[in-house]
Amino acid sequence: MEAAEGLSSATPTEEMNGAGNLMDFLDEPFPDVGTYEDFHTIDWLREKSRDTDRHRKITSKSKESMWELIKSLLDAWSGWVVMLLIGLLSGTLAGVIDLAVDWMTDLKEGVCLSAFWYSHEQCCWTSNETTFDDRDKCPQWQKWAELMTGHAEGAGAYVLNYFLYILWALLFSFLAVSLVRVFAPYACGSGIPEIKTILSGFIIRGYLGKWTLLIKTVTLVLAVSSGLSLGKEGPLVHVACCCGNLFCSLFSKYSKNEGKRREVLSAAAAAGVSVAFGAPIGGVLFSLEEVSYYFPLKTLWRSFFAALVAAFTLRSINPFGNSRLVLFYVEYHTPWYMAELVPFILLGVFGGLWGTLFIRANIAWCRRRKTTQLGKYPVLEVIAVTGITALLAYPNPYTRRSTSELISELFNDCGALESSQLCDYVNNPNMSRPVDDIPDRPAGPGVYNALWQLALALIFKIVITIFTFGMKIPSGLFIPSMAVGAIAGRIVGIAVEQMAYHHHDWIIFKNWCRPGADCVTPGLYAMVGAAACLGGVTRMTVSLVVIMFELTGGLEYIVPLMAAAVTSKWVADAFGKEGIYESHIQLNGYPYLDVRDEFTHRTLATDVMRPRRNDPPLAVLTQDSTTVEDVETLIKDTDYNGFPVVVSRESERLIGFVQRRDLTLAIKTARQKQDGVVSSSVVYFTEDAPQSPSSNPQQLKLRRILNLSPFTVTDHTPMETVVDIFRKLGLRQCLVTRSGRLLGIITKKDVLRHMAQMMNQDPESIMFN
Amino acid sequence: MEAAEGLSSATPTEEMNGAGNLMDFLDEPFPDVGTYEDFHTIDWLREKSRDTDRHRKITSKSKESMWELIKSLLDAWSGWVVMLLIGLLSGTLAGVIDLAVDWMTDLKEGVCLSAFWYSHEQCCWTSNETTFDDRDKCPQWQKWAELMTGHAEGAGAYVLNYFLYILWALLFSFLAVSLVRVFAPYACGSGIPEIKTILSGFIIRGYLGKWTLLIKTVTLVLAVSSGLSLGKEGPLVHVACCCGNLFCSLFSKYSKNEGKRREVLSAAAAAGVSVAFGAPIGGVLFSLEEVSYYFPLKTLWRSFFAALVAAFTLRSINPFGNSRLVLFYVEYHTPWYMAELVPFILLGVFGGLWGTLFIRANIAWCRRRKTTQLGKYPVLEVIAVTGITALLAYPNPYTRRSTSELISELFNDCGALESSQLCDYVNNPNMSRPVDDIPDRPAGPGVYNALWQLALALIFKIVITIFTFGMKIPSGLFIPSMAVGAIAGRIVGIAVEQMAYHHHDWIIFKNWCRPGADCVTPGLYAMVGAAACLGGVTRMTVSLVVIMFELTGGLEYIVPLMAAAVTSKWVADAFGKEGIYESHIQLNGYPYLDVRDEFTHRTLATDVMRPRRNDPPLAVLTQDSTTVEDVETLIKDTDYNGFPVVVSRESERLIGFVQRRDLTLAIKTARQKQDGVVSSSVVYFTEDAPQSPSSNPQQLKLRRILNLSPFTVTDHTPMETVVDIFRKLGLRQCLVTRSGRLLGIITKKDVLRHMAQMMNQDPESIMFN
Repeated sequence: MEAAEGLSSATPTEEMNGAGNLMDFLDEPFPDVGTYEDFHTIDWLREKSRDTDRHRKITSKSKESMWELIKSLLDAWSGWVVMLLIGLLSGTLAGVIDLAVDWMTDLKEGVCLSAFWYSHEQCCWTSNETTFDDRDKCPQWQKWAELMTGHAEGAGAYVLNYFLYILWALLFSFLAVSLVRVFAPYACGSGIPEIKTILSGFIIRGYLGKWTLLIKTVTLVLAVSSGLSLGKEGPLVHVACCCGNLFCSLFSKYSKNEGKRREVLSAAAAAGVSVAFGAPIGGVLFSLEEVSYYFPLKTLWRSFFAALVAAFTLRSINPFGNSRLVLFYVEYHTPWYMAELVPFILLGVFGGLWGTLFIRANIAWCRRRKTTQLGKYPVLEVIAVTGITALLAYPNPYTRRSTSELISELFNDCGALESSQLCDYVNNPNMSRPVDDIPDRPAGPGVYNALWQLALALIFKIVITIFTFGMKIPSGLFIPSMAVGAIAGRIVGIAVEQMAYHHHDWIIFKNWCRPGADCVTPGLYAMVGAAACLGGVTRMTVSLVVIMFELTGGLEYIVPLMAAAVTSKWVADAFGKEGIYESHIQLNGYPYLDVRDEFTHRTLATDVMRPRRNDPPLAVLTQDSTTVEDVETLIKDTDYNGFPVVVSRESERLIGFVQRRDLTLAIKTARQKQDGVVSSSVVYFTEDAPQSPSSNPQQLKLRRILNLSPFTVTDHTPMETVVDIFRKLGLRQCLVTRSGRLLGIITKKDVLRHMAQMMNQDPESIMFN
Repeated sequence: MEAAEGLSSATPTEEMNGAGNLMDFLDEPFPDVGTYEDFHTIDWLREKSRDTDRHRKITSKSKESMWELIKSLLDAWSGWVVMLLIGLLSGTLAGVIDLAVDWMTDLKEGVCLSAFWYSHEQCCWTSNETTFDDRDKCPQWQKWAELMTGHAEGAGAYVLNYFLYILWALLFSFLAVSLVRVFAPYACGSGIPEIKTILSGFIIRGYLGKWTLLIKTVTLVLAVSSGLSLGKEGPLVHVACCCGNLFCSLFSKYSKNEGKRREVLSAAAAAGVSVAFGAPIGGVLFSLEEVSYYFPLKTLWRSFFAALVAAFTLRSINPFGNSRLVLFYVEYHTPWYMAELVPFILLGVFGGLWGTLFIRANIAWCRRRKTTQLGKYPVLEVIAVTGITALLAYPNPYTRRSTSELISELFNDCGALESSQLCDYVNNPNMSRPVDDIPDRPAGPGVYNALWQLALALIFKIVITIFTFGMKIPSGLFIPSMAVGAIAGRIVGIAVEQMAYHHHDWIIFKNWCRPGADCVTPGLYAMVGAAACLGGVTRMTVSLVVIMFELTGGLEYIVPLMAAAVTSKWVADAFGKEGIYESHIQLNGYPYLDVRDEFTHRTLATDVMRPRRNDPPLAVLTQDSTTVEDVETLIKDTDYNGFPVVVSRESERLIGFVQRRDLTLAIKTARQKQDGVVSSSVVYFTEDAPQSPSSNPQQLKLRRILNLSPFTVTDHTPMETVVDIFRKLGLRQCLVTRSGRLLGIITKKDVLRHMAQMMNQDPESIMFN
């Protein structure tokens, strides 16, 4: 009763079945063996009961022999083994990606003469001639102009460097987009919307295949190195899920059960975030809060294990060279004060507004890309955006470097040893304090200069990110969002700091900010801003705060972060409930039943079920009066996924549900192998077929393919309950009855369509929740 | 169709309806207004749809006037307000409890002369005469013997102090048990098993009432101060849940909806753990992993908020006087090494074994208490156990002090300034090192002495805790379990350290433990041991590790903790799947459907439903042929909670389900207010009652109380699916049909009984999961 899924208003198939898909179809050589077809929804209850059967079989066999016992033990442990493997591989891949990105980002500016495969930092580490003041300058590292012309300074060298910077960026991004186009179209984007959909029970064959894994890893390095305004965090989740899928195929327990496979993928997503930020607990909560659909406690434990192994592996590789797990390690020396909550909450409001602006603008642009000519030239688009990005980014030191470095600098507290422009404060020569305790000081010219450059960088980042996210290359938006917030936060932080210094007699500063005291940490504002902006875009709260908490390692700053994250969520939610991932899911028309949308309308099952009033009657089979020919005609004439079986057309009492797929196979097999089954044979779904005179053609007994426990609701059931049932039990379809008589059917697609309809009718209702 | 709930094999009512309950019934003056009776299960689907109705009403009203709009906004925000209040109150209570326990624990030994309400520590803080070496000795603080006889030393003083220590302990515990007996019997125990049951949808009226809150807070202080082997963590969860229930009554949204109330209680449980350990994230995960049943994302956000507010409030009160949030703050200076994983895993095994031993012994003892004369003398039992505890605890310095202080000392690293016996190492006079970097040294006589005392303390704690947990006073087992683990861990840690010092040329130590290096931290072993033992008893993993992680604030030690926690869980699970809370739930016979038990048997709905083969037929009503008298007879003769309504006794086609309660009320009202309704009136459940001749008595139309969407499954549905449905949708009952005809009914109680039956038949199956 269910047409091929995917809401009819959109066509995921169309966009996704690109030519390069070929490779990924080869990954799964027998698509016919899998139970579900591509772009269809799985039936969670059925998968679960299949797994229980398998498990039961193994348990009962295990008593037969020692070997079977060992096999059953192996089976019981396979879940943990898969987690271990996922952790190891995704940690390794993350480490390799970090190292490669480091090197290739620096390659845009120059090369290490002692060993070309060294990044700038590594190059100068190994050098003995580095002074402490200028850690980044050493003779081994040469910019391109210096290497080619011998002049390191001057207008000519600047232009040459500028030109080569753009050229490298274009080369990297061209390579990335071409690889994606040719080998794995599924490797583009952040992947999180699709993973959310897959985890909710949708089948997208090849989306997590080996080719996608390989190409996404390579092109991610290229895309990040090209200097585009994108991050590696979202794609790392996709990469980790590909690893998960890869290792699933080692164990039939997971490879042959779509439900169990999704448990592994949930854990893999946790491992992905764990290595992206070095935050294992945050990763688990991200998977729970943002990505997963079905998250039993067992998966919680396994996710945690996978996340830990991944983080530990990454730390062993030590890509940042500081044996730290985390991307942005910071230590602040000053506590925060109650009065600072005001700017923190303002940053939260900014984050919420940015989230709304970004989502709306980005979705509008992506829709334009889908509907106009623009979508036909993905390579050109990437090239053009990269060109503009590189052209505008190079002159500004804050946009020229990689975005993670920028965030790292913005988060940093100005210690005594910092040489950054942002720490150019006027020193008071009379003051001699310990290294770590720097009092507030007036800003020097460097700081004012930095403020201007940061303001320009902010505008640039806001605009370019909108156009970057959604192009046909791997692109995450954690890092760009955090950068926007960190810039805004640092600007606010410096402003508050200077205000506190110059007006320390104001009533608001009087209590906590005496002159000569260290009372405002601009770096903390940057961190709070980053959390607010990320929260506005993704609508995470708990996992966001936990990730940030793991970054700093101090409980001290949870309250500011929480205040900003919650404000940002509230502000953004006031303009629309959906985060960026849900918006992209909607844009692509995936059949995703969001756990968070509350359905509060007064409709009943009878309003949603098909057939509608003017439709032809429901296509049903009867238990003992349909012929093989009737069935074949029905299969040919309709494209429903299955058919209810009733006692007779008159009584319409439901006895079961039969899958289209099973029916086709059964009849085909019977016609080939069973003598006497012809078109006029009667199909029996009853337990015992009646003795028929031998003149009649052979009967066909099909009870074994009949699902005797189809899910039913009455026509008076409120849709709210129906939505709840679909969500919690993961149904594909549900039959509607009234006093035992079959009336119609509701599929997941019907539910989704109805929800969308009701939501549009009454957009105000979402405000009150 | 459902008899009064509570598995028949056990009788929670019997034990719980003590005399003192009186007070708590006064808390809720109109038990009739509540929809559910005491010791019944709620219907989650119904509660949810009631809330949606309410919400819909408010939303539609809000468009009418400004005032209604404001009211609707207040309603929308009431959830956050409740969270704020819970956080504030539970943080405050936790602070007050901490301060009071500190003072009263010290009162057993002596008194502060300058101000009797000072604890030992506070007393000596305010003193100027305290030397740095002997922080705990100041003239203001006098032991009882010194105060009474003037002699601080000598056998007489020792005996007098000993005697007074026991006397105080007996006094405190007597007060505690008497208060519990007289005013609030529900205040005993840890409360977590009952809260788990309540959160899963059971009603225990008064369990979270105001009196329970007050008495539990007071008696918790008394019980902990008495020196019994119990902790305040579990009861704090109960206290926080009482706060949650208290604030629920402020808003009709929560007070009138049992489903919504449980969302608040889940968050309150998180706040409770948050203040118990100073671990807000751990608290949220504890609520998610261990306590809650229905935990939607919205509850996750709110729990986090409540936990943060609570932790922040506690920090503002600053009961530990060090502006730290956490109970046991530790800082270690040495990393751990791979080889150390072996002792860590051994500690995990120990934890698992201890968990199994404790659960079995404690349950056996509690069963004996329930079934023999023992249970009749709860006051005597408490007095006896307190007497024995005090008698045995005083001579040993490690058991004399409070258990949290003991754990704190065991966790501590031996810095240069430690004066504890455990840090009595032989100093090498040639070595001068910075304060924090102490190399491994040979153990001095103090350490060997301490080892003996610790070993005795370990045995004492193991035995006494088994008898303590479950007595009629508030008692948590987090702290005693952690103490057992910490003692064992510290002993192992010192052993490994000395082995590494004396045999640093052994191959296992050679690589990482050169002489003069600081390579083994015995405090870390104590922490790992504590985690292992707590894990073995409660079977927590993720929340446990996160709590421990928040205690130390370092990602460094997650791997050792995780290794120990997982090993301990595996070892303990091998002997029985249930943790201490589940075991107590079973012991008390609460109808709790554990989310973690997987049901893997091959039974069908038809095997479980009632009526069984030899039972009388199902009690049903017909839609248009039952008289008022028939209904009244049915109500009188049966004690079912509701009755299915069918078209006619012949066709048995189901049309709805009617609650016993609603039926009784409707008939009573009709008889009083509706003219002409007599015993022979026909009850109509159809939409339109037929026009009847005027000679017939007045009809009674009851369609409005008929639930038209009862939940049905077919008789062929596997029980595995039925269990899943009951769990996920929180049903009370489910009707069983075959091809549209009503066959029987399955209640939550039937499901639980069947699960228990199948589990006992095949205990081996639980091994493989």
